[in-house]
Amino acid sequence: MKANFTLDLFSKFGFGSKPQRFSKPLRFLITTLTLFTLLPNQLLAQLQKTEPPFWYSNMKNPELQVMFYGKDISKYTVSVSDNVPITGVTKTENPNYLFVTIDTKNIPATQLTFTFSEKSKTKFTHKYELKQRRKDSALRQGFDSSDLVYLIMPDRFANGNPSNDNTSNTKEKSDRNNDHGRHGGDIDGIIDNLDYLKSLGATAVWSTPLCEDNDARGSYHGYAQSDVYKIDARYGTNDDYLKLSSELHKRDMKLILDYVTNHWGAEHWMIKDLPTYDWVHQFPGYAQSNYRMTTQFDPNKSEIDKKYCVDGWFVKSMPDLNQANPLVLKYLTQNAIWWIEYADLDGFRVDTYSYCDKEGISKWTKAITDEYPHFNIVGEVWMHDQAQMAYWQKDSKIGAIQNYNSYLPSVMDFTLHDAFGNVFNENEPNWDRGIIKVYENFTNDFLYPNINSILVFAENHDTQRFNQIYKNLDSYKMAMTLIATVRGIPQIYYGSEIGMQGDKGKGDGDIRRDFPGGWNSDPHNAFTSSGRNETEKAYFDFSSKLFNWRKSKSVIHNGKTLQFLPENNVYVYFRYNEKESVMVVINNSDKAQTFKTARFAEGLKDFTTGTDVVSGKSVDLEQDVTIEPKSAYILELK
Amino acid sequence: MKANFTLDLFSKFGFGSKPQRFSKPLRFLITTLTLFTLLPNQLLAQLQKTEPPFWYSNMKNPELQVMFYGKDISKYTVSVSDNVPITGVTKTENPNYLFVTIDTKNIPATQLTFTFSEKSKTKFTHKYELKQRRKDSALRQGFDSSDLVYLIMPDRFANGNPSNDNTSNTKEKSDRNNDHGRHGGDIDGIIDNLDYLKSLGATAVWSTPLCEDNDARGSYHGYAQSDVYKIDARYGTNDDYLKLSSELHKRDMKLILDYVTNHWGAEHWMIKDLPTYDWVHQFPGYAQSNYRMTTQFDPNKSEIDKKYCVDGWFVKSMPDLNQANPLVLKYLTQNAIWWIEYADLDGFRVDTYSYCDKEGISKWTKAITDEYPHFNIVGEVWMHDQAQMAYWQKDSKIGAIQNYNSYLPSVMDFTLHDAFGNVFNENEPNWDRGIIKVYENFTNDFLYPNINSILVFAENHDTQRFNQIYKNLDSYKMAMTLIATVRGIPQIYYGSEIGMQGDKGKGDGDIRRDFPGGWNSDPHNAFTSSGRNETEKAYFDFSSKLFNWRKSKSVIHNGKTLQFLPENNVYVYFRYNEKESVMVVINNSDKAQTFKTARFAEGLKDFTTGTDVVSGKSVDLEQDVTIEPKSAYILELK
Repeated sequence: MKANFTLDLFSKFGFGSKPQRFSKPLRFLITTLTLFTLLPNQLLAQLQKTEPPFWYSNMKNPELQVMFYGKDISKYTVSVSDNVPITGVTKTENPNYLFVTIDTKNIPATQLTFTFSEKSKTKFTHKYELKQRRKDSALRQGFDSSDLVYLIMPDRFANGNPSNDNTSNTKEKSDRNNDHGRHGGDIDGIIDNLDYLKSLGATAVWSTPLCEDNDARGSYHGYAQSDVYKIDARYGTNDDYLKLSSELHKRDMKLILDYVTNHWGAEHWMIKDLPTYDWVHQFPGYAQSNYRMTTQFDPNKSEIDKKYCVDGWFVKSMPDLNQANPLVLKYLTQNAIWWIEYADLDGFRVDTYSYCDKEGISKWTKAITDEYPHFNIVGEVWMHDQAQMAYWQKDSKIGAIQNYNSYLPSVMDFTLHDAFGNVFNENEPNWDRGIIKVYENFTNDFLYPNINSILVFAENHDTQRFNQIYKNLDSYKMAMTLIATVRGIPQIYYGSEIGMQGDKGKGDGDIRRDFPGGWNSDPHNAFTSSGRNETEKAYFDFSSKLFNWRKSKSVIHNGKTLQFLPENNVYVYFRYNEKESVMVVINNSDKAQTFKTARFAEGLKDFTTGTDVVSGKSVDLEQDVTIEPKSAYILELK
Repeated sequence: MKANFTLDLFSKFGFGSKPQRFSKPLRFLITTLTLFTLLPNQLLAQLQKTEPPFWYSNMKNPELQVMFYGKDISKYTVSVSDNVPITGVTKTENPNYLFVTIDTKNIPATQLTFTFSEKSKTKFTHKYELKQRRKDSALRQGFDSSDLVYLIMPDRFANGNPSNDNTSNTKEKSDRNNDHGRHGGDIDGIIDNLDYLKSLGATAVWSTPLCEDNDARGSYHGYAQSDVYKIDARYGTNDDYLKLSSELHKRDMKLILDYVTNHWGAEHWMIKDLPTYDWVHQFPGYAQSNYRMTTQFDPNKSEIDKKYCVDGWFVKSMPDLNQANPLVLKYLTQNAIWWIEYADLDGFRVDTYSYCDKEGISKWTKAITDEYPHFNIVGEVWMHDQAQMAYWQKDSKIGAIQNYNSYLPSVMDFTLHDAFGNVFNENEPNWDRGIIKVYENFTNDFLYPNINSILVFAENHDTQRFNQIYKNLDSYKMAMTLIATVRGIPQIYYGSEIGMQGDKGKGDGDIRRDFPGGWNSDPHNAFTSSGRNETEKAYFDFSSKLFNWRKSKSVIHNGKTLQFLPENNVYVYFRYNEKESVMVVINNSDKAQTFKTARFAEGLKDFTTGTDVVSGKSVDLEQDVTIEPKSAYILELK
């Protein structure tokens, strides 16, 4: 189908055949590394990369596969100190890679030594650290329905350190005038504004990828990673990321890393010297995905359509990783676990989850959750049918029809997002128009194995901006009332809380505008109360009130839901547990509505009054209730 | 909610309190029955109805509950002849009913005698027949994917017997000028045209209900039944229905009865003297259903919403039966089984299946399929989400999430019908427009426990006429090609095959127009080849060719499906088994399309040519294939 556009990557980028293809900065880096590593070992020039660069002792799975990279490294015989058993050595068709598997069981934190020898000719060693894990690392509690997840595009949030806007080893330079270019936001910018996020009521930060993306253009989105063990220098250092983690934890907030299992960037150093031809999916080389994820389960599908979905590349600049290759799978699994331990993470968001090899991604997810049983991982399963989305959640009865278990703890409520599409403009309800769309989304909740572990959101970095569709605070208030009070894990997208707009029709850059105040030169600063203009203040104050209220409300975090069929575009539902009850009323009508409360007896029980969380207003529930047009009540009942 | 409109049916229609409320014809009937039954028994006036009127020996479930109806019948003590054990006698708050349960195990076909005695005062007897069953009755094979089901509205199909257009004991009189009135079609009219149906390729007839519907208006649709043991006199007699059955079977065709478990008509004699207050759902009396069938499984639903869905009446003239009442359930179950035995049925279509009490309808369905394990029942589950529809099919894994099993062998493919909505007008395909809609319907096939047992259709008696949406033969041909070649049981609606139109926007009457030629006075007769006009002939000839071809094609009946992602609005799929393969190509584009065949290698295997079923044209599959705009190929491969 796409034969005209295919490239044979392996022969094109082969290390041995064309080392001269390395860019100047990379050559510089290699030289530097070589010089550095030559110091302790006579011939360490052969070893240019070791991944993972270090590991941890006392992991539940003691098997560690270390990948050594260097010219003709596979010709060497390897041994390891401390009586650590080598359980496997894998060589590939590329002599520059050597995969050495060791058993770390009962090995304490220590520095191991790998020794490489080639017949009697040469010999060198490499120190390898097994670090101590944090106390209770395995039992870390991931983000959950008690959290509010705040999604940041780091390049567009705040520029805390203008000195790293351009770096010598990264290609794309800063250009704030280019919608699709790099604007200079960084980790320091996030850290600087953690108190802002805390004041908003956010309890977890999901940043889009921060690892190096060395694409020449469009690298700001970070999904075309060129090194998955290194933070992009334009965002900061690995240490800066650790600081972000600790600064969050100091504030009782959580850190979610955006992990990309499906693809790397074409600039990834391994893509340029592939360990195996099938490290990435080749047709040969590039073919585009058809994006038809239904081929993952359609019993009538053709294999060729499934192949193009799963093996096709998301875009040309992102070679598609082959998770069916055990070496790839192990590499991705260890890389993910490494980041959890290293950066003390609280969760992953996994990009394009359902485009991956089904079995491979299931093994990846299981390996991580076996290691960290309370860790949370939310996968991007962007489909429009609840059965299809529920298929991908851990222990799904839908997946089980095909004996499939992804082990993925969380998915995203894209059908709720679909319902939000135009619903707040639908003033004349009928059978399937108006707020009934939102009600209906929840009627299928039983399809999900874990309904509290679903991310609910009005927008993200790939969708139309909510405030672009609805340029009014009333719609925002209704949507956020829903997001904050329905079951699941609420997620908001940076800027939403100050009414930020942006039109996806103009390109992704426009839905990823700079947060006002994130740059020193910005005319005003919406991070501060005094800096916000009137509109921003109205959005923020509402949001902050709502989300801060939510923080301590276990009845919202994991209470049951009781919903009533909307009448006159008014949707009433209750969240309740044995201790408390909250009644939510959304009037999506453009007229004030008055209703009798008798119909809601199942939820009202003996409660007689409700206090609105946002306005503080008291509502007498023994009388008819009137609610203003396009507004919401969140009534704490007593 | 609807309190202003409620009626307390029991007090309103009570036999004892207001016998004078019986209509004149009913009084006449009662008098006649009374006179008749008085002949052999002194005081048989007390016994006005016995239901079932007779039964069969050697049923798998030997328990038989006979309902006796007559003034103060419950005051009598009952005994039965032939040493048949009475295992239960149930009296209700209405003294005019007596439910007597006997155990027929090992009782041969015979005539039993029930004796009723009241202290020493009075005594009478009633003869009750246990008939011989047909040989292999229990093993009867229901309609299945080898059939083509032809749906008839009998009042609108053919008037075989004008002398029964009006009868003394039915209220509504014939008025062919009234869209919503009775037109005179009848069972004789169906029998007269069975050879027409056979020539079309139909192998099973589903007629909308033929039992008496004695509503004063709109009775032609038959869903407001007033006696479920008696064919409406305007359609003929019970014997006529038996003749229809045998005439069908002579032609190797099948008979499907449209059973209504959810409701009866307000004119049903038992509704006028309810056995128990809760025989029907009362609020008290009438409240309308909210039709939100999602409340049947929504874990967040309010009980009040579910109650209005399930217990609410479909329309005011149809009191909603309470299948949770064991007496009602037993009555409906025995009535259904009685019709199977009596009329030698091949299947049921069950109206408004998913509006019934979930547990009750499951028990009803299980009782019937326990008795006839190969019988087929297709339930009307009119929803728009495949998981929601699959919920209701027997052994559903979706239903099992809530420990629910309906035992219903077949459901209807309403989402395919949804896809047909406007698809053949969508000439510019995109992500979710064009023939992709049809492709996508099948991607969820794995949700259904039995994909071959799904009714596929372009229209029925409740939907917009297909030929009204698409006033052209090309669209019809594409739709029928799909209906005839995808998995499942194809169903067509009378008149569709001659291009009949009709606009639901004008009311249901317009989608239920009279079949031309069904009435002696009709200006032309589309039942005959010579009578059809040019348009009718074009529709019919195509249909007949297609459906007759399908009859013997086991590869279509139960072969596997292999489908390919549409490109350029062209959809290609294969049906195949170990012996043969059929390649179907639908070009929904308004331009001729040429495609390479290499992409379809999985389906083409070693086949090199295909012969189109309709045109007989041979297509070379080793070359590029061109297909005309808005057309289809059905290629038998060799």
